[in-house]
Amino acid sequence: MSDAAPSRAALLVEALPYIRRFRDAVVVVKYGGNALAGSDATPLASFAQDVVLLHAVGIKPVVVHGGGPQIGDLLRRLGKEPEFRDGLRVTDADTLDVARMVLVGKVNRDIVSAINVHGPLAVGLSGEDARLITAGAHSAGLGFVGTVLGVDPTILQRLLAEGLVPVVATIGADAAGQAYNINADTVAGALASSLDAEKLVFLTDVEGLRGDPRDPGSLLHQVTADQLAQMIESGAAAGGMVPKAEACVGAVRAGVRRAHILDGRVPHALLLEVFTDVGIGTMVLP
Amino acid sequence: MSDAAPSRAALLVEALPYIRRFRDAVVVVKYGGNALAGSDATPLASFAQDVVLLHAVGIKPVVVHGGGPQIGDLLRRLGKEPEFRDGLRVTDADTLDVARMVLVGKVNRDIVSAINVHGPLAVGLSGEDARLITAGAHSAGLGFVGTVLGVDPTILQRLLAEGLVPVVATIGADAAGQAYNINADTVAGALASSLDAEKLVFLTDVEGLRGDPRDPGSLLHQVTADQLAQMIESGAAAGGMVPKAEACVGAVRAGVRRAHILDGRVPHALLLEVFTDVGIGTMVLP
Amino acid sequence: MSDAAPSRAALLVEALPYIRRFRDAVVVVKYGGNALAGSDATPLASFAQDVVLLHAVGIKPVVVHGGGPQIGDLLRRLGKEPEFRDGLRVTDADTLDVARMVLVGKVNRDIVSAINVHGPLAVGLSGEDARLITAGAHSAGLGFVGTVLGVDPTILQRLLAEGLVPVVATIGADAAGQAYNINADTVAGALASSLDAEKLVFLTDVEGLRGDPRDPGSLLHQVTADQLAQMIESGAAAGGMVPKAEACVGAVRAGVRRAHILDGRVPHALLLEVFTDVGIGTMVLP
Amino acid sequence: MSDAAPSRAALLVEALPYIRRFRDAVVVVKYGGNALAGSDATPLASFAQDVVLLHAVGIKPVVVHGGGPQIGDLLRRLGKEPEFRDGLRVTDADTLDVARMVLVGKVNRDIVSAINVHGPLAVGLSGEDARLITAGAHSAGLGFVGTVLGVDPTILQRLLAEGLVPVVATIGADAAGQAYNINADTVAGALASSLDAEKLVFLTDVEGLRGDPRDPGSLLHQVTADQLAQMIESGAAAGGMVPKAEACVGAVRAGVRRAHILDGRVPHALLLEVFTDVGIGTMVLP
Amino acid sequence: MSDAAPSRAALLVEALPYIRRFRDAVVVVKYGGNALAGSDATPLASFAQDVVLLHAVGIKPVVVHGGGPQIGDLLRRLGKEPEFRDGLRVTDADTLDVARMVLVGKVNRDIVSAINVHGPLAVGLSGEDARLITAGAHSAGLGFVGTVLGVDPTILQRLLAEGLVPVVATIGADAAGQAYNINADTVAGALASSLDAEKLVFLTDVEGLRGDPRDPGSLLHQVTADQLAQMIESGAAAGGMVPKAEACVGAVRAGVRRAHILDGRVPHALLLEVFTDVGIGTMVLP
Amino acid sequence: MSDAAPSRAALLVEALPYIRRFRDAVVVVKYGGNALAGSDATPLASFAQDVVLLHAVGIKPVVVHGGGPQIGDLLRRLGKEPEFRDGLRVTDADTLDVARMVLVGKVNRDIVSAINVHGPLAVGLSGEDARLITAGAHSAGLGFVGTVLGVDPTILQRLLAEGLVPVVATIGADAAGQAYNINADTVAGALASSLDAEKLVFLTDVEGLRGDPRDPGSLLHQVTADQLAQMIESGAAAGGMVPKAEACVGAVRAGVRRAHILDGRVPHALLLEVFTDVGIGTMVLP
Repeated sequence: MSDAAPSRAALLVEALPYIRRFRDAVVVVKYGGNALAGSDATPLASFAQDVVLLHAVGIKPVVVHGGGPQIGDLLRRLGKEPEFRDGLRVTDADTLDVARMVLVGKVNRDIVSAINVHGPLAVGLSGEDARLITAGAHSAGLGFVGTVLGVDPTILQRLLAEGLVPVVATIGADAAGQAYNINADTVAGALASSLDAEKLVFLTDVEGLRGDPRDPGSLLHQVTADQLAQMIESGAAAGGMVPKAEACVGAVRAGVRRAHILDGRVPHALLLEVFTDVGIGTMVLP
Repeated sequence: MSDAAPSRAALLVEALPYIRRFRDAVVVVKYGGNALAGSDATPLASFAQDVVLLHAVGIKPVVVHGGGPQIGDLLRRLGKEPEFRDGLRVTDADTLDVARMVLVGKVNRDIVSAINVHGPLAVGLSGEDARLITAGAHSAGLGFVGTVLGVDPTILQRLLAEGLVPVVATIGADAAGQAYNINADTVAGALASSLDAEKLVFLTDVEGLRGDPRDPGSLLHQVTADQLAQMIESGAAAGGMVPKAEACVGAVRAGVRRAHILDGRVPHALLLEVFTDVGIGTMVLP
Repeated sequence: MSDAAPSRAALLVEALPYIRRFRDAVVVVKYGGNALAGSDATPLASFAQDVVLLHAVGIKPVVVHGGGPQIGDLLRRLGKEPEFRDGLRVTDADTLDVARMVLVGKVNRDIVSAINVHGPLAVGLSGEDARLITAGAHSAGLGFVGTVLGVDPTILQRLLAEGLVPVVATIGADAAGQAYNINADTVAGALASSLDAEKLVFLTDVEGLRGDPRDPGSLLHQVTADQLAQMIESGAAAGGMVPKAEACVGAVRAGVRRAHILDGRVPHALLLEVFTDVGIGTMVLP
Repeated sequence: MSDAAPSRAALLVEALPYIRRFRDAVVVVKYGGNALAGSDATPLASFAQDVVLLHAVGIKPVVVHGGGPQIGDLLRRLGKEPEFRDGLRVTDADTLDVARMVLVGKVNRDIVSAINVHGPLAVGLSGEDARLITAGAHSAGLGFVGTVLGVDPTILQRLLAEGLVPVVATIGADAAGQAYNINADTVAGALASSLDAEKLVFLTDVEGLRGDPRDPGSLLHQVTADQLAQMIESGAAAGGMVPKAEACVGAVRAGVRRAHILDGRVPHALLLEVFTDVGIGTMVLP
Repeated sequence: MSDAAPSRAALLVEALPYIRRFRDAVVVVKYGGNALAGSDATPLASFAQDVVLLHAVGIKPVVVHGGGPQIGDLLRRLGKEPEFRDGLRVTDADTLDVARMVLVGKVNRDIVSAINVHGPLAVGLSGEDARLITAGAHSAGLGFVGTVLGVDPTILQRLLAEGLVPVVATIGADAAGQAYNINADTVAGALASSLDAEKLVFLTDVEGLRGDPRDPGSLLHQVTADQLAQMIESGAAAGGMVPKAEACVGAVRAGVRRAHILDGRVPHALLLEVFTDVGIGTMVLP
Repeated sequence: MSDAAPSRAALLVEALPYIRRFRDAVVVVKYGGNALAGSDATPLASFAQDVVLLHAVGIKPVVVHGGGPQIGDLLRRLGKEPEFRDGLRVTDADTLDVARMVLVGKVNRDIVSAINVHGPLAVGLSGEDARLITAGAHSAGLGFVGTVLGVDPTILQRLLAEGLVPVVATIGADAAGQAYNINADTVAGALASSLDAEKLVFLTDVEGLRGDPRDPGSLLHQVTADQLAQMIESGAAAGGMVPKAEACVGAVRAGVRRAHILDGRVPHALLLEVFTDVGIGTMVLP
């Protein structure tokens, strides 16, 4: 018997209580567009494998994704100059069309395909399907940048009940069928709340939340929703971290048990977070 | 009481046997990309209303669509020169990406949205979702033009059982996740066969099948699958009509009760065909 | 294509929202004995067809019928002199036997048979079956004229759940099994209330309710339950219209969405009322 | 403790294997019109109690009844002269109407009411309901005397599944809705066959089948279907016993486990036959 | 027909309302170890037959048993001197092991086998199975004599739903898996309460409860829970009757409809009590 | 993040295909009495934990156990001299009683309790429960040593469907309720066959099967059922290994996918065998 056996046994035993505890739990995972931007397919394949493992042991993962870099690429190829206001992309009808094509027709497809290499598991959706996400204009002057006005999680619940893995592109529509492009972090939080999820996980390209944005040594392992809300107000959480932090606060306050901001660059960060005693990144508690 | 009443009553009574007969029947409708190509939203809204009416009276519609003109548009905007061989678009990786974005991220979304104005009914899919369509290369030299190698209708059956309306974009994938763009007529026929559909309906921009392609007076109201097979062989059915005719022959031989090639330019052609004694276009019988 | 096609399409489209709205709705229809009294089978066949159409599009019709003229016929053949007090037939044991035979064994059978020409749909019942209607004496001196003391709609709900059409003869029984003959309008109202029906429809041989009983021009298209209650009190609704009006008021107040007094002599009045924008007769609203 | 206790215990223990064996078994009981003809309600009440007891211990009784004497009574009151040919009543349209009214509207109602004194159990039917019995003319010259052309037991199976007790009046109808009056013994046999019944029981006013019709001492306790068929052929079974004997032979050959011709004048003959070791009347075996 | 027939019929009719009333009712029966102590297998076989009869007519029996005499036997064979304190056996680890072996491995097996002679019905359990009974120490100094801290009736409900008969040996365990021996009367009461039983029945070797323990003529046929509680307090119920009486009071106060202390020496006492008008022993009412 | 993380991730990923493949699979585990014989509770606790882990990831374990050493202990304490013939214990009625008490009332209880420390999972059974195992005498002269005549796995299937873990003591009974003590290896094989198990696993106190019984270096990692059958015939598999080997051959030939003879002394041998690429002991293939 190989030398590695004892530690294999120990690791299997360590994972036991987690596997048991999270059986049938809904876990909403936000997978960032940055991870998909490069030409290297390995991170996506590895992420897909992690999602399939969660599913294999009875967890119900829901994947939410953005695709900012990929939208920018196609806009550039079409000769359109991106215009941002307060960090949000000004989105005219043509830009919306491009965003929708990229998110639903490219990024979503790539994730679905990567998962389905392992079996007929993933089904891609946008918020327009079965009226999953009712959206409205975020603010005047930004065009078709949307905000979440309501979530009807019925279609997700049906797919989960069938043992499928929903992959959601963050396009919503209003009652008249007009589409909007919505921030993916915000959507992930809203879906986690409406599904009464066990966990909301953000896979990012940073190590986690810092107490002081400029100090790499100030990584926070654990923070309450109230503390995090204060950090947003005080500006300690800033930039691209704000919608993630707001989604974490909102979801945990709406009953989601735990929210996590993980370093998606660590191989199999998702598995390690869910199934082992090893803590990665920042955990947000009620 | 208005003068119209008696004829209203008569029409309701005429529709009765059809409504009863087709309850719970699966009807696969191929909706052509041409109908969507213009800037006029009316035909799509009218088509969506027809689909919702079929659904309202207990029929289970499945919509399949193409999008050739729209793919051509985006390719042109990106400066790519379309290249055709034997009537099929040579499809390199970049062209495939564009086709997939347009079909899944634009045409499919537009149809889903148009239907969902009436309620949370439509869910968009491509053949990649839950491995609906397993595809392979159509022929060497055409790149990622695909052919249908297998259909797993499970996801469609689940959605239909939930009372939802699947809208299918005709992208398939092989076991390794590589996507292919497939002729929508062919996909419609394959789905109708695998779902044991009652009807397969092609909504086209011609009046129907002609006995003699050049003679407008030779419109055929009814033809058997064997006769149609012979017309394909003899060249009496030619051009873009071939994949439709082949799909009709294959589907009817596989057990689909009726196939129809209708004139989609007639308002509510779908309703008139299904619910009234008025015949429109060409019906293919076993 | 025939000239009639456009208007056929328009009518189908008009019917759409009604068909969708009333799917699975219970509609209680009181069919009067007068309509059956003649030797002409056409009205009954036409009524049966209408009921089957309602059923075909997912509505759950419940038919309630009387049979006054037919009871009178048999009594006369048996040489019994009918005796009325306050408009109600004095009902001794023998008269009750005759009434029960006629209602359950003749009128009910005729309606069931007329419907079942279209398929195995109708099942005849009286209030004695599975204790559907618990009855008591209406008043001393009238003998076995009954009043509704309670309704147990379980058997109706079971038959409706099986996709069947209950046809109810208005005989009830007390706990000891003694039968009573009950006014059919009253029974229709009580069943509609207990089934939480969407509609209660009286098919009569008048045009509807008049504001002034003597003025044919005073037909009311719409009236609230409160207005109608006042009309009963003031005597504006009188004679045979009273039990219908009282049943409408009671049912609407108990939660039935709409009650209708229709002109059953209009061909397919039931279909026109339910599925089109054409209003016939009088509608009673909450 | 009373002296009777040991024998009470012994009886309960005797009944055990029968109660267990017949749980969920369908037992079709033909109840003769003669038993109902007198003015004494006791036999009917006792029969109803027996049916309720069978039902209480998990047996599924189906009651079939005739009503010859009662039909004769009403015909006489209406001044119609009964006319018989080969022992069958010549049945014109008016006679059929009377027969139907009496069977469905009187005898059936009386049995339903007697059972429902014990709870909401019985539901009356005729062969017209949900197309239970498809009938045709028995022979030219007899008018609307019917023969069973087909049985669709679905409605009975549904009612039995709901824990209800069907009570069937032996009127059938053809596809056009024309009613026929059918021999009740024949109907009982046909229903037992179509329901794959455990037992078919005839409650008669004789002791059972005799080997020699004129010898009271020749009562047969047990006979095979083949022996009984021979008795019919040889004339040893004659008169009103023929349709019962034929029904027994047909049912047992079609798979019904046992048929019984019992003396319905013995109090609770049905219970004694089903639940005890005491044999009453004649049992027909395969 | 035999002379006994009328009384057989009368007894079947007497049993009817009871069989109907107790269908699907849970009846918890405590079967005393004394009944099993002798070498005569007849009482056990007779008891098993009664349980099977209850089950056959749709009652859901749960058997609870002790085994004091049998435990004493094995302890004596092993040379252990039994030690009692306040009527309770001082139970060290070795004594517990013996008690558990005897109760679970002998008495329980004998009852299960006796029932299963009639079919695959009985399943033996102890309180350790699926954590049915959570126990703790009864009092310091008594060792592993247990008291009921909690009941999780899930496993019993599952077995009952499958049509099985649970037979429960009264060993419980604490969260760490330590076993305890618990008084069987107490366990029977706790299970009856947790199962919302219709009846709790003690089969004893006395006639019932006496108003005056020394006066055989003071047998009580009926007593309320409050009266019985007072009898315990006043000492009128004493000795081995106390845990039975306390269990009756507790169960009836917790919602069990009736508790009974029967004379198990009367043949088929259980059947007579449940199915006839004959009263045996003492009934405890709310 | 700890250094161990990458290897944790690798192990989780390694376990993925096994966890997915064995979901819902039945795994029958024979746990030897030797492992329980000592005073050390650790091996049992460790085994229980492994069973719970299998269960937690959706595998359906069934535990079968013997208890030879424990039976010998109690027989010795009772002063009975064990008598063996051909390696089988001669079993008179008293010895059977002792064996049954020890197996069902001690060993079985200890295993159930050890598992239930983790939750309400385990339910103990013997072959007598719900007639799981029908047994007969193994051979004249051995008394109540049994052989398996039939298995009715219904009760196991029901418990497995409820998510419970059956723990089976190897006592069977004949139709008259007479108990027999059966070899546990044989029972394990019979249960695996009747349950169409994925795996049959023997946890032993040897390393596995040797090609040459005297040569520790001849451990076989893999062997076909045919090869193993030949080894039994040739005497290469001998002694206590014979019933295990026969059970493996029989089970694999009856459709069980794999049988394993593992070294139960290796900590978590069961987990390592099922979930990792590490092979332990001997695997028997078809």
